[in-house]
Amino acid sequence: MPEFFNVLPPDEARRLLFEHMKPISDRETVPSVDALDRVTAETILSPHALPAFRRSTMDGYALRAADSYGASSSLPAFLNVVGQVRMGETADVTLGKGEAAIVHTGAMIPDSADAVVQIEHTQTIGGESGREPPFEIEVLKAVASGQNVLQVGEDVAEGGTVLPAGHRLRPQDIGGLLALGILEVPVVRRPLVGIIATGNEIISPEEQPQGGQIRDINSYTVAAQVTRAGGRPVLLGIVRDDFDTMLAAASDALERNDMIVLSAGSSVSVHDMTVQVIDQLGEPGVLLHGVATRPGKPTIIGVVGGKVVLGLPGNPVSAMVQFSMFGRPAIGRMQGLPTSPRQGIVWARLTSNVASESGREDYVPARVYDGADGLMAAPVFGKSNLIYTLVNADGLLKVPLNKAGLEAGELVEIQLF
Amino acid sequence: MPEFFNVLPPDEARRLLFEHMKPISDRETVPSVDALDRVTAETILSPHALPAFRRSTMDGYALRAADSYGASSSLPAFLNVVGQVRMGETADVTLGKGEAAIVHTGAMIPDSADAVVQIEHTQTIGGESGREPPFEIEVLKAVASGQNVLQVGEDVAEGGTVLPAGHRLRPQDIGGLLALGILEVPVVRRPLVGIIATGNEIISPEEQPQGGQIRDINSYTVAAQVTRAGGRPVLLGIVRDDFDTMLAAASDALERNDMIVLSAGSSVSVHDMTVQVIDQLGEPGVLLHGVATRPGKPTIIGVVGGKVVLGLPGNPVSAMVQFSMFGRPAIGRMQGLPTSPRQGIVWARLTSNVASESGREDYVPARVYDGADGLMAAPVFGKSNLIYTLVNADGLLKVPLNKAGLEAGELVEIQLF
Repeated sequence: MPEFFNVLPPDEARRLLFEHMKPISDRETVPSVDALDRVTAETILSPHALPAFRRSTMDGYALRAADSYGASSSLPAFLNVVGQVRMGETADVTLGKGEAAIVHTGAMIPDSADAVVQIEHTQTIGGESGREPPFEIEVLKAVASGQNVLQVGEDVAEGGTVLPAGHRLRPQDIGGLLALGILEVPVVRRPLVGIIATGNEIISPEEQPQGGQIRDINSYTVAAQVTRAGGRPVLLGIVRDDFDTMLAAASDALERNDMIVLSAGSSVSVHDMTVQVIDQLGEPGVLLHGVATRPGKPTIIGVVGGKVVLGLPGNPVSAMVQFSMFGRPAIGRMQGLPTSPRQGIVWARLTSNVASESGREDYVPARVYDGADGLMAAPVFGKSNLIYTLVNADGLLKVPLNKAGLEAGELVEIQLF
Repeated sequence: MPEFFNVLPPDEARRLLFEHMKPISDRETVPSVDALDRVTAETILSPHALPAFRRSTMDGYALRAADSYGASSSLPAFLNVVGQVRMGETADVTLGKGEAAIVHTGAMIPDSADAVVQIEHTQTIGGESGREPPFEIEVLKAVASGQNVLQVGEDVAEGGTVLPAGHRLRPQDIGGLLALGILEVPVVRRPLVGIIATGNEIISPEEQPQGGQIRDINSYTVAAQVTRAGGRPVLLGIVRDDFDTMLAAASDALERNDMIVLSAGSSVSVHDMTVQVIDQLGEPGVLLHGVATRPGKPTIIGVVGGKVVLGLPGNPVSAMVQFSMFGRPAIGRMQGLPTSPRQGIVWARLTSNVASESGREDYVPARVYDGADGLMAAPVFGKSNLIYTLVNADGLLKVPLNKAGLEAGELVEIQLF
């Protein structure tokens, strides 16, 4: 029985993978409204300043700040309201000394004004507010020049960087693009991830298992993980445990996709066959077979011509854990995202002790819930062959490499699924 | 100028909203492979036990545990390997006393065996491993009955609850369903959320702004937030600040959607008009106008015939913050998710002091990054009129109701976008 050599801790394994893989160079232009979760292919610059004109941040009166200096409720300043700026219209009123104009939040400020006094700090003389100008007001509080005014370019300057390349677009980014009239955005093509299940015992979920057969799980959990990570899963079915068949399927899959995942079967002989298949696919082939984690030690990490090839253990828990450790960051990296395997990490307080071995990163499925004292993490113990261990969990609790277990009450790191 | 009455803290505001709104009763059946992030409409039960047969969790030999009792490396037990169970096949070998059969991880266990000894704890006599049976082995370590064996139903029992109703499907859940041959799953129809922008100053992003005009942002940030929350956004364009026009648009939108969002404009007069429009739509109408938070105090929360109607402030930061506080949990609630506004909450260590007023929940945009000491949160200060305040942030830092500010180094709660 061969020993696994080249077993590395996850951080080093990821570094090795990242050194050998290549980002996707294909890009495409998509409407900004449809670009949620896509990754920018280049730096986006602002075509103009935002705001493009000076705007009020309050309902009140535009004025020359100097006219309010020294004003207080006991010694108000008196101003003549000579006009009104309507929403969405150019402020064409010109203010002389001692004059003001009605403005609403978001309205343009007249050129001759340099501040806004909010309506709460004024009083209409001889009548109710809401009147049409002209009328007179008392200003009960001094305002400084620029007060309650958004300056031109205060949000973004003309030519300023709106978004860097390699940025995953969130709701606010979409809003930011459209605010500048940027209707289309260059993004990296979504990575295609081919998924092959192997194992003579594996059948498709539509089939009725006979003695000794089980339905394919990993193709579907991995496919959903690929989707979540921003890739496009391509299900390639189930392949027999036969070297030539596996090689042909993997070779074809590699040609058509940016990454391939082999659900490598759980026995050692199938594992070894997967190693040989990946090595046959091209250079550099297998980078390492074995990661110092539990579950999931027998993970195979390879790169062929810059494309990632993962051989995942057959156990559903191991497969999912390992995909989240290597597959997900690889999909981000392919799109040019800054390397962070730490998306979806939360801290929570551990509800019970967890034993572990030092020198290995352990991942224990955990249920995360909102306790009186903040987030709590309850370990879900179960064999890694049991998919329902994960169904009952919300994420993976990490026991760091250098720790022999964790204690109840500790603040621990959870990778959410 | 009217005062806002009925200003509530966010938790109470949410409770009031949840009391009046109704869940969606429409359901649909979707293929399990396409059901990621959908919410189950009923409890899903297991059609059969999983695993359906006893399986090995190791590469090794199936045996009768009693035959290994007392075995050690100095005093091994001798067994005859009389057969082999092939992957995916019925274990048709019958073991007598002192006999064993080769099994791989995941293989069926013969009826006559009750345990598996892993290959590492055995030694082949007079030859290399990997031979075809018959041959003899030394067992170097005793195994207990049931050791290294998955029992029938250990993952899920027949008729057991696979998933509860009101559960959002994650990758592992999809795997769990397919493992049982559950190819379709009943889910709640995705909520349709109609989005109307209001404001005479607002133009569509395709248009070129003239003096005083700005492009619509909120429709698009909210639409992306709706998508993230599991709803289906329906963009209904921009409506003038005119009571009859707004009422007609809102009334039509309410009929065709499960929820409507009015980006209510930022001035007080438009806010008041929105309140009147919502009250005209039907019963109970406006539940409250004003939430004790910053930003976003002038949020209008209404329900009409069980459907949620939100009037969001015009400022893009306020609109996004308020939608995440009320719109997102409402979309979850409509689908029958357990009420948790706490999805996407992380804890991080604050990098600098944040001032606040007691008696108000403050939300400060923050950049979240991975520091040497775990997650760090750096507040991003900026006016709530500036969309790029949010573009530079990853989430919202919460200053609780009863606190007057937070100190650098404190562990704080962040709602990720």
